[in-house]
Amino acid sequence: MIELKAYTAFVEQHLQTLNIPEKPQQLYDPIRYFLTIGGKRVRPILTLLGAELFGDAKETAISQALAIEIFHNFTLVHDDIMDEAPLRRNQPTVHEKWNSNIGILSGDVMLIHAYQHLGKIAGEKLPEAFELFNRTAIEVCEGQQFDMDFEERDDVSIHEYIEMIRLKTSVLLGCALELGAIVAGAGEDDKKSLYAFGQHIGLAFQIQDDILDLYADPEKFGKQVGGDVIANKKTILQLTAASKASPEQLEILRQLKDEQDNEIKVNRTRELFDHLNIRQDCQARMEEHYELAQQALKRINVPEENKKPLLSLASFLMNREV
Amino acid sequence: MIELKAYTAFVEQHLQTLNIPEKPQQLYDPIRYFLTIGGKRVRPILTLLGAELFGDAKETAISQALAIEIFHNFTLVHDDIMDEAPLRRNQPTVHEKWNSNIGILSGDVMLIHAYQHLGKIAGEKLPEAFELFNRTAIEVCEGQQFDMDFEERDDVSIHEYIEMIRLKTSVLLGCALELGAIVAGAGEDDKKSLYAFGQHIGLAFQIQDDILDLYADPEKFGKQVGGDVIANKKTILQLTAASKASPEQLEILRQLKDEQDNEIKVNRTRELFDHLNIRQDCQARMEEHYELAQQALKRINVPEENKKPLLSLASFLMNREV
Repeated sequence: MIELKAYTAFVEQHLQTLNIPEKPQQLYDPIRYFLTIGGKRVRPILTLLGAELFGDAKETAISQALAIEIFHNFTLVHDDIMDEAPLRRNQPTVHEKWNSNIGILSGDVMLIHAYQHLGKIAGEKLPEAFELFNRTAIEVCEGQQFDMDFEERDDVSIHEYIEMIRLKTSVLLGCALELGAIVAGAGEDDKKSLYAFGQHIGLAFQIQDDILDLYADPEKFGKQVGGDVIANKKTILQLTAASKASPEQLEILRQLKDEQDNEIKVNRTRELFDHLNIRQDCQARMEEHYELAQQALKRINVPEENKKPLLSLASFLMNREV
Repeated sequence: MIELKAYTAFVEQHLQTLNIPEKPQQLYDPIRYFLTIGGKRVRPILTLLGAELFGDAKETAISQALAIEIFHNFTLVHDDIMDEAPLRRNQPTVHEKWNSNIGILSGDVMLIHAYQHLGKIAGEKLPEAFELFNRTAIEVCEGQQFDMDFEERDDVSIHEYIEMIRLKTSVLLGCALELGAIVAGAGEDDKKSLYAFGQHIGLAFQIQDDILDLYADPEKFGKQVGGDVIANKKTILQLTAASKASPEQLEILRQLKDEQDNEIKVNRTRELFDHLNIRQDCQARMEEHYELAQQALKRINVPEENKKPLLSLASFLMNREV
């Protein structure tokens, strides 16, 4: 994993030295702030690794990597306003530190900045990169809208939920990788396979995120275990449970939503889920996507040696405990 | 002016038949709604006229025209949230008809849609169009931020105000025209001149907007005369007055800000402005930009005949009473 640290540092260094103007200060200070409060930088690293898979140096792909990371941060700034989230990466969110109007406008500028970085690609490759990026950006927004819609609905199916997380988070991983491949001049089939690899890793990652919320080791988990249960959030655990539960169990789940004692709420929910084998079901679903990701990577026509960094990153993402 | 009507209809027809998806409904209904509640469609018409100036048909430039109009509407949706405006074109704004979150997200998608239309240009012309569009989009956001900043400040200079309206509204007119010229394959000097024409027309238009607010014929003006005065808005009239007023007159202007009777407030302000010759000063400033616009157009190396529609549109914009 030492190798990944070098990539993170490479991305971080470029983010720290972006040429962001001074004025208007209320517009650019929030952008500088938000881009440098940290994050795993997984998406831009995927772009760099996507390019290197086909032999290109990470220097060629850095602009596309920055486009992806700045786009991702734009979505976070706007999502945080919509979700009224006070904290992001343990720091105040933009609308909290400044205000919502500043969050809206500086987010808008981040989206345009992302496009500016995207434009720093060889001219003949721009139309393809541009089309992929546009399509992905639309899908991410659609995913966010479905996510908000689902909060109001009681009949969300597992299929709809998976489609929502695919749009909201997975397509951007596929796009990040494929942009790297476009920079490196990869062939059509290889680009498609790499995109599929990213999408399945994204789905596996998101499913694991849901599982960890309730089943993480409290000693190692950075936040409150069972946070999603307490907030009555729809997760793959909850939807799988709802799809398997008897009418009596459904009634218990319904009642638990109103339970005021959080410890009781989390423990009883976990008991019921355990009884229904929910963790194993979701784990199987996660592994299925992890397996599909590995198969997609296998199909790519480059020396196996080249694939090691991506396999290493995937395994790092899958074996986390936080 | 019959000719312009045909262009408006051409743009309108394309806006009505955009292939906007059905789902998620909460994301796409607001976009469909906002793009079809009207507007003068000046910007996309500029793109079409910019292309035709160099002999290209309007069909080639329609995608760029739509990109400009959808971008403009994105800024309106987000600005309306920031300004808490309940109405736009006499219809409820998006955040008013739905809510702020939906306004933020559907605005974001409109911005991405604008880029999608921008992308429908011959590949070899994309880098140039993309760079111009990105730069302009950033400037428009900067202008909006300066506008919001100015609300909090008492020491805004005329120079700063002109720079703000240049960024917030004029650069987009220049960009609209230049995109048309890019589509039509115009030369470098001609593109620069056309951009300058648009920018000066934009400045003249905006200065006239400020003048009309206080000096329009109430019978013909669509809204309350003196609305900017009542709202204590910074306008070119107010800033010019502040730059010429004696300490005593400045004190009267300061006191008028707190005047509760709107009729007294508007009338006394107008009296003071008349005393200081403010209307004439601003009119002269406006005509200066109109003149610079016409000079820029003159420099363009195409038959004078080709320039008639643009001159006609400029004169239409300058001789309005609303």
